[in-house]
Formats: sequence, C-alpha cells, structure tokens
Amino acid sequence: MRNVSKHEIDSASIPQLKQLCEEIRSEIFCTVSSCGGHLSSNLGVVELTVALHRVFDFPHDKIVFDVGHQCYPHKLLSGRAENFHTLRKAGGISGFPKRNESIYDCYDTGHAGTALSAALGIAKARDLKHENFEIVALIGDGSFNNGLIFEALNSLRILNTRVLIILNDNGMSISPTVGGTHEVLKDMKDGAASIDDVRLFERFGLSYMGVFNGNDFNELLPALEQAKERLNSQNVLLHVCTKKGQGYAFCEHEPQETHGISPHAKDITRKEYSHALGEELSLLAATDERIVAVTAAMTDSLGLRDFFNSYPERAFDVGICEEHASVLCAALATQGLKPYYAIYSTFLQRAFDEIIHDVCGQDLPVTFCIDRAGITGADGETHQGVFDLSYLSLIPNLTIAIPKDIGEFRAMLRLSQNYSHPLAIRYPRAGIESAPNHVEIGKCELLHSTLSDIIVFAAGETGISIAENVRNKVQKEGIDFTIVNARFLKPIDAELLLSRKEKYVITIEDNALIGGLGDAINRFYLNSGKIICNFGYRDAFIPHGDISLLQTQYGLNEDKILECIRKFYACR
Amino acid sequence: MRNVSKHEIDSASIPQLKQLCEEIRSEIFCTVSSCGGHLSSNLGVVELTVALHRVFDFPHDKIVFDVGHQCYPHKLLSGRAENFHTLRKAGGISGFPKRNESIYDCYDTGHAGTALSAALGIAKARDLKHENFEIVALIGDGSFNNGLIFEALNSLRILNTRVLIILNDNGMSISPTVGGTHEVLKDMKDGAASIDDVRLFERFGLSYMGVFNGNDFNELLPALEQAKERLNSQNVLLHVCTKKGQGYAFCEHEPQETHGISPHAKDITRKEYSHALGEELSLLAATDERIVAVTAAMTDSLGLRDFFNSYPERAFDVGICEEHASVLCAALATQGLKPYYAIYSTFLQRAFDEIIHDVCGQDLPVTFCIDRAGITGADGETHQGVFDLSYLSLIPNLTIAIPKDIGEFRAMLRLSQNYSHPLAIRYPRAGIESAPNHVEIGKCELLHSTLSDIIVFAAGETGISIAENVRNKVQKEGIDFTIVNARFLKPIDAELLLSRKEKYVITIEDNALIGGLGDAINRFYLNSGKIICNFGYRDAFIPHGDISLLQTQYGLNEDKILECIRKFYACR
Repeated sequence: MRNVSKHEIDSASIPQLKQLCEEIRSEIFCTVSSCGGHLSSNLGVVELTVALHRVFDFPHDKIVFDVGHQCYPHKLLSGRAENFHTLRKAGGISGFPKRNESIYDCYDTGHAGTALSAALGIAKARDLKHENFEIVALIGDGSFNNGLIFEALNSLRILNTRVLIILNDNGMSISPTVGGTHEVLKDMKDGAASIDDVRLFERFGLSYMGVFNGNDFNELLPALEQAKERLNSQNVLLHVCTKKGQGYAFCEHEPQETHGISPHAKDITRKEYSHALGEELSLLAATDERIVAVTAAMTDSLGLRDFFNSYPERAFDVGICEEHASVLCAALATQGLKPYYAIYSTFLQRAFDEIIHDVCGQDLPVTFCIDRAGITGADGETHQGVFDLSYLSLIPNLTIAIPKDIGEFRAMLRLSQNYSHPLAIRYPRAGIESAPNHVEIGKCELLHSTLSDIIVFAAGETGISIAENVRNKVQKEGIDFTIVNARFLKPIDAELLLSRKEKYVITIEDNALIGGLGDAINRFYLNSGKIICNFGYRDAFIPHGDISLLQTQYGLNEDKILECIRKFYACR
Repeated sequence: MRNVSKHEIDSASIPQLKQLCEEIRSEIFCTVSSCGGHLSSNLGVVELTVALHRVFDFPHDKIVFDVGHQCYPHKLLSGRAENFHTLRKAGGISGFPKRNESIYDCYDTGHAGTALSAALGIAKARDLKHENFEIVALIGDGSFNNGLIFEALNSLRILNTRVLIILNDNGMSISPTVGGTHEVLKDMKDGAASIDDVRLFERFGLSYMGVFNGNDFNELLPALEQAKERLNSQNVLLHVCTKKGQGYAFCEHEPQETHGISPHAKDITRKEYSHALGEELSLLAATDERIVAVTAAMTDSLGLRDFFNSYPERAFDVGICEEHASVLCAALATQGLKPYYAIYSTFLQRAFDEIIHDVCGQDLPVTFCIDRAGITGADGETHQGVFDLSYLSLIPNLTIAIPKDIGEFRAMLRLSQNYSHPLAIRYPRAGIESAPNHVEIGKCELLHSTLSDIIVFAAGETGISIAENVRNKVQKEGIDFTIVNARFLKPIDAELLLSRKEKYVITIEDNALIGGLGDAINRFYLNSGKIICNFGYRDAFIPHGDISLLQTQYGLNEDKILECIRKFYACR
C-alpha cells in the first residue's frame, strides 16, 4: 500500500475515506495472511483510526495503544505503508507500537492495561513543560477488566490533567470479555444505563460520551470533534462500539479464531503443548473433583476450551486479571482443591508478587502451567518468555519443572496431581509428542550416558534438541558427551550432580543466562574444579524475528557450543 | 488479657461488649507500646471485630483481612490473648494473619488488595465441596484503590458465589486515601450518593448496605445480622465508617503518625535513609525542573513529605497502586522528565512486570528508590526485602546500585540526575550518615586493599559492616583481607574484578543467595580457578523477629564467615 498524507485524509470526502479503509483492510488482510499477526482486532478499528488521523494531528498529538493488537491501521497511516510487508519479520515492522520505529509511536506496549497510565504520564509531562498537544489512549473493553487500568482511572483526580480515553468496545479481548465491568458496558450499549452512570464517571474525573458506532464515519467524526473540544477542560471517555473483524465475513463470524493468525502451514511433526494440557487436565478432572482450572482471558490458546466445556463449574476465566487469578488459585488451594493456572510465560510476570506472597508464601499446591516459554518469535520484546526460570528460581517453596517433550509434560501433570507444594511447569508452544515417561520430583534424567569427560545439562525441548544436534555432529569427529535432561531446575538434583565425575560441564537453556539453570549449576559446582560453560540468552531484550535465528543470535548458537565441546575435548 | 469465649461474647450486654472493647484497646495499646506494631488501624476496628465475633461463628465461618494491619482484635478474641505480649517477637504472635498460628486465620496477608480474591477462592471451594459456612473479607478503603481488588470485583459475576465484603472506611490507608474511588465513597458517606450507585454495585454482582457507624454496636449488630441474612442469596458489600485510632485521643488526632509504632527509643547513631532521600530530591528539584517524585501511599515513611509540600505539582501519591506508579514514571520519562519512584522493596514486587515491560523495555531513565531492603524484622515473611537484588538482576537495561551508607546514597542520587537509563538504588531503613563520596556508574570501591590472598565483595551497609566486623576480629589473629564495596551489582565492575589476583573470594549480601551478588560473582569468575564462598540468605521465607538475629540465622553468620576466612587463610 502507498503512504497516505495527513493532507489527503483531511481533504477526503466520506466516500474517499471509506475507499481508504478498503485499502487499509486489504493491505492488513494480505500482509497478515503471509506474515501472520493480529487480524480481526485490527480490521475492527480501521474507520476509528482513519477518523483519529483526521481529527488529530499526529505525531504532534500522541496516541497510546493498549496492548497494541490494534495498531496496524495507525502504522499504515504514519509513513509505514510501503514497509508494511516486512511485518513481524526480523528487522521489519513490529507488530506492536515501537518508539524506535517511528515518531508516531510514543509508547511501547504489548501487555494489557498500561495505556491509561502511560497517557496520563505523557499528559502530566506536557503540562509541566507547558506544551500543548492532545493525548489519546485507545483501550479495548477486554483491558478494562485489568487492575492497572482501574488504578489509572482512580488517579485521574490526583493527576489533574487531560486525556482522551477511547473505549473500543467490541465485546472481546481475545476471548469474549467477561465480568462486572463488561455488564456495566453492556448496559450502556443497550441504553439501560442512566444519567447516573455518567455521573459516576464524573466522580472519577471523566466526562463520558457514548455510545457511538466506531465503524461509521458519520457518527465517529462529529463525536471525535466534540470529544476534542471537551478535552480543553476535562478528561473525556469516548465509548465507541466496533465490530471485531469488520469487513471480512469470516473474521466477523469467527473473531476469536482470527484474532491472531499464524503465517505458515502447520508443521505436523510438532504438536501444541496446550493440546496436551487440555487432554491431561480433563482426564485428571474426570476422577478427581479437586481439579480446577483458571485462565486470564486466554482459554483457547492455552488448550482449555474442552475442559471449560466439560467442567464449567470448575473452570474460571477471570478476564485479563493475572494477579487476581493467582490469588484465587492460592485461596482455592487453602481449601484442599487442586488449582491449575494456565498462562503465557511473559504474562505471568504480572503475578510475580502474588506467586511469592500468596502461593509460595503459604506453600500451597497451585500448579502454574506456563506456556510460550523461551523465545516466541514474531511478537517480539514484550512477548518473549525468557525470564521465567530466573524470576521463579528465587522464590522459596516453588518447584520448577521443564519437560523435554510433550510426553514428559503429560507425566509431570500426572505427577502434579498428588504433589502438595507450588509447582511451575514451563514449556514452549510446540514440540514433540511422545509416550509419557516416569518422572519424579527433583530427579533429572540421564539421556545419554557416555564415558566421556564432558557432560551437558540441557533444559527443555529447545535445550535438549540443541544438545542432541551438537552430539550428532561431534560424534562424527569421534567426540561424545553425556546429556542430562535437567527437567527439574528446583529442587536441583543434588544426588545426580554429586555423582557425576565429568570435569567439563555445559548448560543449555532457552532462558536468560542471568538467574537460570546455568547459575544454579554454577552455584552447585562452585569450587568443584569443574570447567563450566553456560549457554542461554545474553542480557538484552530480544526483538521480533524467526525463533531459531533469534535463538542463535542471542546465545543458543550451535556452532559456539560445538566449538566449546571441541575445546573441552582437546583439553582432556 | 485473658482469653474470651464465643459464649461470653454472645451472651454479653452492650455495656459488657463496650467493656470488652476497653480491655482489647488497653491490651493493644500496652503491647504495641512495648513490642511495636500497628496501633491506630487496630484501635479503629475493635467494635467491628467484636461484633463480627458475635454475629459469625469463627473458625467455622472464615474471615480474610486485607493487608492485616487490623487483625489484632481478632487475634485477641481467638485464643491468642494470653500470648499476645509476644507480638512480633521471634517465635511469638505475628503482626499479620498466619494460617500456621491459628485455625482462626484462614489466609495469610501482608500486601494490599488480596482479600477479596482470597475470599472468593475460599467461597468457591466451599460451594464445590458442598460445605456451608460464611466468608467475610475485611478491606480498608485504602485498599479499594488497588487494581487487584478491582479485578476481584470484576469477577464476582464470573465466580457466582457469596461473600460478605466489609469496607472499613476510615479515609486512610497509611496516608489519607486518595483518588476517584475515594471520591465516590466520600459521596456515599455524605449522603450525596443515590439509588443508582447502589444499582452500580448490583451490576457488579453485589448488594450494597451502608453507611453504618463501625464503632457503634447499636448500628453494627443489626447491620451485620441483616448482611448475614442477605448473604444467603447474594454477595454483600457492607460499608462501615470507623475512626482510625478510636479510643485514644492522640491516635485519633494523629492517625498517620500512630499507624505503625516502633518499640524502642531511637538509636541516634543510625539515621533513616528516607530522610536523605527527601533532602537530596528536594535539593535536586530546586534547580532541575525535570525532577518528579512518585509514591504509592507511603509518602511519609519514604521521607518525601517535605518534597511533596515544596513541589506539589511535581509530586504524585497515586494510592496503593504500585503498578500504575511504575507505568506513570515510564511515561513521564518518555517526555524528558526525571521520575523518582520511592517504594519499599517488598512492595516493588507488585510492579515487576511494569519494570520490565514499561521502564526497562523502553530503557527509560526512571530511578527506583527502594527502601526497606534486606531483612526488615518484626513484620515478618511478607515484609522482608530480600528478593530485590535477585528479581532486578535479571532485567536488561537496569543498573543496580547498593549504597554502603547514607553519604554514598546521597552521591548516587546526585549521580542519577544525569543518568539516562533505568536505575535501582536499594537500601535498608537506617544506617550511618557520612559525607557523600565520589561514585561512578558500574565502579565498585576498594575499601581496604591488602596484600592478602583473600578478597571480600560486600554489598550495602549490612554486608560491609559484617565484613568490617569480621576483619576486626581476624586482624587480631594476624589475618587480613581486602574488602570491596560492591556498590554496583549491575553493570558489574569487570575491570576491577579482572584486576584482582586474590585466589579466595567471599561475597556478602543482605539478600537471598539465589540470583543476587554471589551468583553474579560466581558467573564472572567461572573457570578462573578462584575459590569462592557466598554468604546471603538461604532459600526460605524469613519470619518475624529481631533483625540481626534473623540475619545470623538465615545465612549472614559472622562466625561462619570468620571460619571461612580462617580456612582460606590456612589453605594459602
């Protein structure tokens, strides 16, 4: 698609604006079909974004996107149309707002609920610097469940500045939106809300305007103009309804399935861990009434739809509320239930304090099923799951398991059923299916035992497959080494570690080097005289790109490991 | 005070209940005067707690306290009166609810905002197990600002169970409550609220009852009876007003100053770091308009009252909203301002994701002033600041500074003014004042350089004072060692570390062993042939007790360090 100037947008007729929307939709549809990315969420906000670019003057005015699953039209209208075909590719356009990509992006996002706090900070800075521009926070109704948004709403009166909040209400986060806030919004859309709801917003320091059709320029443009006018004297909440997937019948009918799109045909040799989670939990739940499952707005992508359908009374999707979900699990566990909290690695960061304070502080048998661990690829910095081993390791009472494949994952889930302490199981999105093996808490597995003086401790599917690849290569050179499946990072397998006599030790993990498996092995073998080399990710935020390329670039480089093995072999 | 039976409370006349309240107040006042603890918050809820013990049947029914600053009357009425004089002492009664202390405590707390999620989890478990008891969540209005409470409110309709929320509204958290929620509550108290506010609660799945005088049995008892009745069919929010400090004129007039009480006369040789923070920030702000300060409801205890008074337009107390405060700082920094976010170590855990996602992910110059680091003593497990070096170390782009005394802290704050990356400075509550020295980012300080083959890397005031003490002792034996003030954990001082030729290395830090300074030194000196010994806290939650005793018990044992030095000396 060609780049479009502000002047063109400003001078276009409504039919011309509609034509522009068609171009934008077509570009998004084509690009996402080939690159993957967020589809329906972006299709829904095309008119809204065009209208915003007409009424406001970006980048002089600023726009903050909550999460960022709806920023593609903005990218296309801010000089990035001609590059848009590089979406989510290494070095190409990011799928999320990025300050270092364009001056039209004023704040980086990726996790939910940050936009209002960010907009308020920018607004307050503007006031202090006596500058004059407008700030828009575009927030989906799914994010309005999140505690962080509420904390920001609560502080509107404290901060005493002016921002425009656009509540983009499509009734969905990734899954349909749930909860009390959603009920209130539904009432407002249904016309069941009263003047008093408006008064409530006023008490929080907001002038409410709504509800407008966010896919219709005839409603949108005057509403935005009026909101901009009001913004001179107060904070404004503009409530617009949009249709997720608008413009493509299939997306409109299946907004959940088309929220995010994977670019390539599925690799049939690799299965999703989430599928195994769903199967195993359903099996366990069939004979164990203590089993309950909790998710934070991602039931489908975590593989739990069938569980939710089969055991609706024992399945809780609490919306984008990662902290609340943790405490809820802790409390369920105090009463003898067996909660499984399924979540992506990067989003669990939100519940860090609750893992410590509520779950592990009380030593409660909550099982964290941590999906999308390791480098996740095309979503970039805000979605890599490379910190979990580090931030979990430091927590007392927590057992940390890293399955080597899906069979072992199943075995760990079965083991967890009668385990009476907090347990974290972290795994990547996809991997190899296999028969469930025998797993014991805190016991690692000797995968290849050799007489060599070199031993590799490898964690998880990524670590182990790299170790195996390297082994296949060096075996041709007459070199061999022992491989341990470091399937429990905590408690560490002291017995096995003490028993190993190899002088040369290598650790491989799909996690940041700081604080992970490598550090644990270093600590254990301190002063042992062993020569150790750690492979994991260097201390950096890892951008979007191809998973295996990023792994290589950021520290899991097979050639370097090979080199290290050869060096060790030569030193013997 | 004697233990009081449920039967006594049930059969007492109102004058007898009042008499009981006097006894409870007197016991709390005397005990807190000698042991320290939370005073005004507990004095305010005496009648409420007595009334709850009359209307409900604990421990069959359950009560969850938010934070726990108001649980003393409950402890006195649940068989712990005769032991109450051991409050906050090692092995004695905890200042917070503790499941392992009494079956009357069903959920451990210490951080704000968890009570409603916890109550809902317990209620849901009750329903699934077909049990029959009532659950009360006692929540102060200060906590109602917290995002976690909102997430739990949002899920009332999802979870479909029944709990009684008592909103204990005294207009205060530790500081006066602030924000939009507070405005709404104030309206309700002032009678300015309408039937529609009640309807709003109903949409969230709550039946609202209020406002009642929480210090008056004649209002309280019938209100609680009615709430209990309603609880048969729905969730209930009972809004009661209490007077913080009730019963002691000084506490009523100075609720903020008497919220928490220290037991002993002040050690005049030790100053508060918070005082230096206030002084330095005020000085910097006088000539630098970029400086802004942000707190989450603890302005006074962080030393920033004067700053807030002098620069009200650049000072933001956002209430108990640690996450929002972080994002706000990040956004202010995107616009060229210089935010200082002052917070206790343990509470910063709440903002872990925002430190990663918002501040460090965008490499923004926010300075975290992290008070109460290390073992903090009498508040116990939920308040020890022993994880921060670990959870901060793993975050890219973050510089971590650990001042050795207050002078160095001042120097670091001055240095921070023109530092353009995220910076965390962590320090204990109190320490030694000194003249500000010269500090450079990433440069450690050689405190005592000797010709010995032993070097000690000590972090912070606690680490260094232990190192100095040990040195004073071994010097009498003719042994000496070098001491490095490891004032930057990140970036590590590679130049200094590489230059040191000592074979024997010791690390000392007032932090968990996992993930802290020790691990960083181990990683750096991997395969160097050095013999290393790490001293820090073992992998456990550290209970309440005397600070220096706990330090010794959990891993900073001077005798063991002494022993290690002697062993190293003998090995040379």
